[in-house]
Amino acid sequence: MSLPDLVIRGGTLVTASDRFQADLAVTDGKITQIASRIEGGHEEIDASGLLVLPGGVDAHVHLAQEQGDGTVMADDFASGTRSAVAGGNTTVLPFALQRKGQSLREAVRDYHAQAEGQSWCDVSFHMIITDPTPQVLGQELPALVREGYTSFKVFMTYDDMVLNDAELLDVFDVARRENALVMVHAEGHDAIKYMTRKLEEQGKTAPYYHAEAHAQIAEREATHRAISHAQLVDVPIVIVHVSGRDPMEQIQWARARGLQVFAETCPQYVAMTAEDLKGLNMDFEGAKYVCSPPPRDSDSQAAIWQGLRDGTFDIFSSDHCPFYFDGENGTGKDNPRARTSFKWVPNGIPGVETRLPILFSEGVSKGRITLERFVALTSTNPAKLYGMYPQKGALIIGADADITLWDANRRAPVRQVDLHHGADYTPYEGMEITGWPVRTILGGRTVFAAGTFTEAAPTGRYLPRGYSPKQL
Amino acid sequence: MSLPDLVIRGGTLVTASDRFQADLAVTDGKITQIASRIEGGHEEIDASGLLVLPGGVDAHVHLAQEQGDGTVMADDFASGTRSAVAGGNTTVLPFALQRKGQSLREAVRDYHAQAEGQSWCDVSFHMIITDPTPQVLGQELPALVREGYTSFKVFMTYDDMVLNDAELLDVFDVARRENALVMVHAEGHDAIKYMTRKLEEQGKTAPYYHAEAHAQIAEREATHRAISHAQLVDVPIVIVHVSGRDPMEQIQWARARGLQVFAETCPQYVAMTAEDLKGLNMDFEGAKYVCSPPPRDSDSQAAIWQGLRDGTFDIFSSDHCPFYFDGENGTGKDNPRARTSFKWVPNGIPGVETRLPILFSEGVSKGRITLERFVALTSTNPAKLYGMYPQKGALIIGADADITLWDANRRAPVRQVDLHHGADYTPYEGMEITGWPVRTILGGRTVFAAGTFTEAAPTGRYLPRGYSPKQL
Amino acid sequence: MSLPDLVIRGGTLVTASDRFQADLAVTDGKITQIASRIEGGHEEIDASGLLVLPGGVDAHVHLAQEQGDGTVMADDFASGTRSAVAGGNTTVLPFALQRKGQSLREAVRDYHAQAEGQSWCDVSFHMIITDPTPQVLGQELPALVREGYTSFKVFMTYDDMVLNDAELLDVFDVARRENALVMVHAEGHDAIKYMTRKLEEQGKTAPYYHAEAHAQIAEREATHRAISHAQLVDVPIVIVHVSGRDPMEQIQWARARGLQVFAETCPQYVAMTAEDLKGLNMDFEGAKYVCSPPPRDSDSQAAIWQGLRDGTFDIFSSDHCPFYFDGENGTGKDNPRARTSFKWVPNGIPGVETRLPILFSEGVSKGRITLERFVALTSTNPAKLYGMYPQKGALIIGADADITLWDANRRAPVRQVDLHHGADYTPYEGMEITGWPVRTILGGRTVFAAGTFTEAAPTGRYLPRGYSPKQL
Amino acid sequence: MSLPDLVIRGGTLVTASDRFQADLAVTDGKITQIASRIEGGHEEIDASGLLVLPGGVDAHVHLAQEQGDGTVMADDFASGTRSAVAGGNTTVLPFALQRKGQSLREAVRDYHAQAEGQSWCDVSFHMIITDPTPQVLGQELPALVREGYTSFKVFMTYDDMVLNDAELLDVFDVARRENALVMVHAEGHDAIKYMTRKLEEQGKTAPYYHAEAHAQIAEREATHRAISHAQLVDVPIVIVHVSGRDPMEQIQWARARGLQVFAETCPQYVAMTAEDLKGLNMDFEGAKYVCSPPPRDSDSQAAIWQGLRDGTFDIFSSDHCPFYFDGENGTGKDNPRARTSFKWVPNGIPGVETRLPILFSEGVSKGRITLERFVALTSTNPAKLYGMYPQKGALIIGADADITLWDANRRAPVRQVDLHHGADYTPYEGMEITGWPVRTILGGRTVFAAGTFTEAAPTGRYLPRGYSPKQL
Repeated sequence: MSLPDLVIRGGTLVTASDRFQADLAVTDGKITQIASRIEGGHEEIDASGLLVLPGGVDAHVHLAQEQGDGTVMADDFASGTRSAVAGGNTTVLPFALQRKGQSLREAVRDYHAQAEGQSWCDVSFHMIITDPTPQVLGQELPALVREGYTSFKVFMTYDDMVLNDAELLDVFDVARRENALVMVHAEGHDAIKYMTRKLEEQGKTAPYYHAEAHAQIAEREATHRAISHAQLVDVPIVIVHVSGRDPMEQIQWARARGLQVFAETCPQYVAMTAEDLKGLNMDFEGAKYVCSPPPRDSDSQAAIWQGLRDGTFDIFSSDHCPFYFDGENGTGKDNPRARTSFKWVPNGIPGVETRLPILFSEGVSKGRITLERFVALTSTNPAKLYGMYPQKGALIIGADADITLWDANRRAPVRQVDLHHGADYTPYEGMEITGWPVRTILGGRTVFAAGTFTEAAPTGRYLPRGYSPKQL
Repeated sequence: MSLPDLVIRGGTLVTASDRFQADLAVTDGKITQIASRIEGGHEEIDASGLLVLPGGVDAHVHLAQEQGDGTVMADDFASGTRSAVAGGNTTVLPFALQRKGQSLREAVRDYHAQAEGQSWCDVSFHMIITDPTPQVLGQELPALVREGYTSFKVFMTYDDMVLNDAELLDVFDVARRENALVMVHAEGHDAIKYMTRKLEEQGKTAPYYHAEAHAQIAEREATHRAISHAQLVDVPIVIVHVSGRDPMEQIQWARARGLQVFAETCPQYVAMTAEDLKGLNMDFEGAKYVCSPPPRDSDSQAAIWQGLRDGTFDIFSSDHCPFYFDGENGTGKDNPRARTSFKWVPNGIPGVETRLPILFSEGVSKGRITLERFVALTSTNPAKLYGMYPQKGALIIGADADITLWDANRRAPVRQVDLHHGADYTPYEGMEITGWPVRTILGGRTVFAAGTFTEAAPTGRYLPRGYSPKQL
Repeated sequence: MSLPDLVIRGGTLVTASDRFQADLAVTDGKITQIASRIEGGHEEIDASGLLVLPGGVDAHVHLAQEQGDGTVMADDFASGTRSAVAGGNTTVLPFALQRKGQSLREAVRDYHAQAEGQSWCDVSFHMIITDPTPQVLGQELPALVREGYTSFKVFMTYDDMVLNDAELLDVFDVARRENALVMVHAEGHDAIKYMTRKLEEQGKTAPYYHAEAHAQIAEREATHRAISHAQLVDVPIVIVHVSGRDPMEQIQWARARGLQVFAETCPQYVAMTAEDLKGLNMDFEGAKYVCSPPPRDSDSQAAIWQGLRDGTFDIFSSDHCPFYFDGENGTGKDNPRARTSFKWVPNGIPGVETRLPILFSEGVSKGRITLERFVALTSTNPAKLYGMYPQKGALIIGADADITLWDANRRAPVRQVDLHHGADYTPYEGMEITGWPVRTILGGRTVFAAGTFTEAAPTGRYLPRGYSPKQL
Repeated sequence: MSLPDLVIRGGTLVTASDRFQADLAVTDGKITQIASRIEGGHEEIDASGLLVLPGGVDAHVHLAQEQGDGTVMADDFASGTRSAVAGGNTTVLPFALQRKGQSLREAVRDYHAQAEGQSWCDVSFHMIITDPTPQVLGQELPALVREGYTSFKVFMTYDDMVLNDAELLDVFDVARRENALVMVHAEGHDAIKYMTRKLEEQGKTAPYYHAEAHAQIAEREATHRAISHAQLVDVPIVIVHVSGRDPMEQIQWARARGLQVFAETCPQYVAMTAEDLKGLNMDFEGAKYVCSPPPRDSDSQAAIWQGLRDGTFDIFSSDHCPFYFDGENGTGKDNPRARTSFKWVPNGIPGVETRLPILFSEGVSKGRITLERFVALTSTNPAKLYGMYPQKGALIIGADADITLWDANRRAPVRQVDLHHGADYTPYEGMEITGWPVRTILGGRTVFAAGTFTEAAPTGRYLPRGYSPKQL
């Protein structure tokens, strides 16, 4: 047997179900051997005292999306994937967003053009369907699914993206026929607009009122509606970024009836509450926490933890959606429209780099979830759910050698100055974290270690994906 | 004390909570005395062996509504109220339907014109809002509520009546401000249209498939949605004509959270199942049972009975909505469009005359509900819920002397030949009934007895109504 | 028509479903006439501005029970029924308690002896079965049921009264055969003893720890167990003195499955919380609030109110169980054993006189329940549930003229000095009440008015009772 | 690197989360290497086309237990573990049963004496506590837990084993202090006895009535009770052999409240129904299916499958409890007492050899559960739950080389003639199975292959166990 390209020695390997000490060898970018002792290796890494995890798979990331108002996000593919890698991820799934009136294929082509040669980790696209014309539903979408774009997202809110119920049903119907998986942003559009108007009429325009306008009732209702449509069409769906107890209850209700409803939650729902949107005395600091759905209260946080533990949630993603706080197009006080009403504050926060440390620290280090569950939620399950398994998400023979080394004992606060995203702030500034990634290995090559990017140029590839399984 | 106009002697009086033997006296159209023995009386009725009940209040009746396709219903105010009176009712609440583009006030005026001098029992109008323009919401509706039109219905389905979520929220908001009560027809429009298209694509066009197109899932979803909107706006609502276990579950769930959700069910959901729509071998006989929501299965029937018993349902109405079966505009095989698809079969069945006998026979005579609950569901509660109490719905001093004498032991089948509605059939043909009304007294004057109308001309009046209570 | 014995004029009559202004006449102790205007009357009472209610029926009252430790209660039949009458009640149902080893018939005879000629209102006995020997189950109990002792209570806790599961099932089985109604004190005995021992081991012996020892979990478990046994045997039961959200949830769960489970709650669960047991800094003042189950937290209070409103609770009783606070056998600091542990503090509080004012003030005056529901909960439903209707619990022709006049606007605090029970304190001292009874009429004779007993001697009678209905 | 003792080549390895093709090497009885290609090996096994699974861990097995009536089971340690090994298992957990009056340590010693040198697979003992004396609770039990007997079972039924609530609480309390895990047989003893008596009174004595006597209500009640006790004491528990929808509902309810309740189900609840107990026309063939709890109906079967899929169940065990059908002490017609009543039919069926094939065939082959879930339920989770992980239950470096090779495509019926247990029948006779184990490897040595035991003598060892985790 020839010498492996890389041997990682002495670490504790963790999978979604197992934990054990072993050496691991990589050849030609694949994991080829796991053993009690592996000699030699062209490159050798000493992982004693470290955890050896399958690289993070962040299944919900927004990069380089053009906004309805013409502004763009704070991250392009280069900065976004650098940030991901620095945060222990080896694969991210950004969105290819169809603008109203645009061909879906053209949208996909556009995002490919932007990602080409810019990705520091592997990437694959979910599509966002905003204009389900007969052409899109009848031809483009089926063709794209068969080419490996096997998942797409729909929005139940946002003026420039919302689908009505007839459109949702039509999109679900295509998903059923093509075995694709639909991700649903479940918030009731008209309910939010009603609440927004009521709040504005009362002069409640500060960023905080975003959290009241996007009431949990509206999220619960849309969750129930999406589930009902999926039940009628007989198609599995993913409810993404679930924020609190009420929508969770709908998901549990559905599953108890045997419906195939997958669920995702995000760091903002375990590490923030709506109180954060108040900033200092209801000022614009609160805008740093504006995302949709908004974080809820401590009761919902407790419910989310319970759901992470008991399997209500299948995956834990960042919903990274970075904006500048400063500047005219920012989320903050420099944006003249945002000053008139919370409804003009762009919705989204950066998080691709902090997702894993936050869940590790608050979840594993504090004993709320097991290490194996951490791996399942952040790597194995997203890889399976979105058709990338067994290439991704696992420390198994034959899988891509995407590996994150983790120091479970390293303590340090989150600091914007240490992060690599394009945004000019992090909502988690100062948060104490126990457990940080210390090295990210993509296809057997270290791309980030000791705070430094170690490759001269991006080496990430685009991944066509297979179909989603019916059960994880 | 001068002699009463009328004394009803020797019967068993039943209220929503009590049952006792007494004589009852009427003067000037009002109940003036209830006593162990009342002497004299200008008119005297021997009620020995009979139940003396407050006259039926049917809170959900469609009369003389012009349909979207230009056809009209089988009952105008004259025939519809005659049928009501023959069935033991003394008050009915038909709808004043606003057509799209029409002024709401004009709609109300139209229905008054049709009802004027034609009503054999007392009537009051709910409004149907189909076009909630700023003019309607800002001016007409508030003014009409204050004039005593204190309830209105909205539809979540039907092409010519459906309101979208923004409109529902706006209408609910007016109801909150004006203390009016909204009745909701809760079926998801787009879900029904989706199912209809799917069924038609498979060549499933017989009347029976109406029951599959109007899936219980769609009713459950719309029920949840209506409840969520009402919760957001903070306004009570009535979910009308609840058909089965799934929407009931949503209502119970809402109430357990303290939300003010009232609920109605109808004879078709305890005395029919979807099987009836199959007719003979899926033929057009099934069209005689087409209504929305459709009757469900025997499990849902059992659930509805449980809900009538345990208080899930506040009221029991007919949803009388009569069409001809025969003829080009009928629901049956003579209608060329209906032959092409179930979706062209007019939705609705006659029932104002059979409502009370069916609930009495299937409910009271078979021991499923108490006699007091029968009175509550069919008379007292609808009178209270819609602001007509204590004038209507009660055997109390000062109330209108609207009284039905009931022979609990009379056994006879339902037969079209014995009924007085305008429709040319009854879906309950041949159903054996134990317990029939034998005399209907309106304001102290007998209007129907022994199968005969006893007044020369209609004496019913129009009733402006007060506000609804928060609890019954 | 001869002149009635009594006419009550100008009041507002309230039943469990209706409310109206009328005069009411009484002859020979029965209600004989209700009319808009009644002339004459040997006695005439002006009730203008007052409510005319059916006299309160308190279905859960402990009087003159000998305790396991030889001490007796603070009320005998004389003082207890005087207190009841002063509080607006005309019927109470105390318990005839079988001591272990005692014949049940002998127990009944004993209590009759004590009650004979002492009762200021009407009384009837529930039995308490503590020793279900073959003789008791096979002969005494069936015979006594047939003689009109149609209900009996069993305890799932208390050393000297607890029945094990086999005994509970046997007693339920007799109830099924004899159509009797079983009342269940549902708290898990061994769970309470376990908690007591744990608390004592930690030196937690103050009265407050009674509330922790009698954990809501233990009540919920016993409630589920009692319901399961009743389901197995197929017999209706009453869960008495339900204290909080958890046992309520079990009851609602059972009913949703169609099981016949009736439920009672009491003033202590809406007007106290466990905090009250802390007294002043955990001192013996807390002993004034010791009862079983104990009051819970504010969340459970809210749940109880919701249950009173929505029909979860059928009846509202006092569970009057009066002890002296002072003295060696009292509940307080003079009791040497009670000082060593909360477990020696007698369980029970006085409340027969304050039950109606508390529910009226906190419920009706504060808008939580309707006036009609107040009447249902406190008079009509207990009369129906325990086989005394229509003689009791209703303002109907032929019923006993048991009537309470109520001044809805009278405001005054509860004060021990104004009460008539035997206990030397009231746990409600100082509580502000809006709405007090001002006159109590038993069988047409005023027994209490303007703070004074108006009869020279007790006139209450013993009532044999009929069978309970399957539905109220 | 020296040559491994064994290489398994070309198979598909399956863990509780992963599936991949690889070679696997064993040295000194441990798994030492997993790689894409492993050369050499003293022994080599070609596993192409086969699944390579961690050996089955059957966590619920009764062997050599002396019965209350003096009879013994059909399997001793030798035959029982041979049967286990033939069925693809490498570890079983039988019970060391304390008889009433017996020292617990003595009971453990007795079972060790029986197992010594007789076990063809590895074994470890759960204890059964039937007599929780102060000596047992205060000294023996804590000492035994610390010696590695970290789990014990309690019974809520059976005359000779039942613990009352006080005893259950005491045992739970010891478990909490010692970090041991309690397994609960949750059926209500008195309820079963009540039902038994009722059925016998009606002459219903055939084996089938065992299923009616052991009503699902009694199981649900005991499940709720056990959960409540565990909640009070604050200790995790395992509800073993859950049979149907009702107890499942209690478990789900508890978990939604964050309680630590683990759950087990068994083959009899997915592959049998109560109908099987009817035999042929209610004859004694039905006795072949008598176990406790009994199998339920098809609705419960569907619920159990749903629970196996969605994580309600953590483990799937056999509850192997073998009796002879023929003979005086058998379960069948030769047993004179059993002929008089079902209550004398010994409760239990053989199943250690058919557990894995049944779950594989009905679960994996029919698409109800994934292969990974199969491994989790039958091997990884039981190993973790009972403190044997990572030594057992996993295909990981350093684990015992306990491996089962599985032919997913092999089709054959279950036949008694092919089985190795001591019982003289199998309740699954004739059941068609797709997917059978073809080789069982214990500590790197093949013990069973191609239908033949390949070792001359038993090589199984006794395993002291560690503590159970709080989460799996």
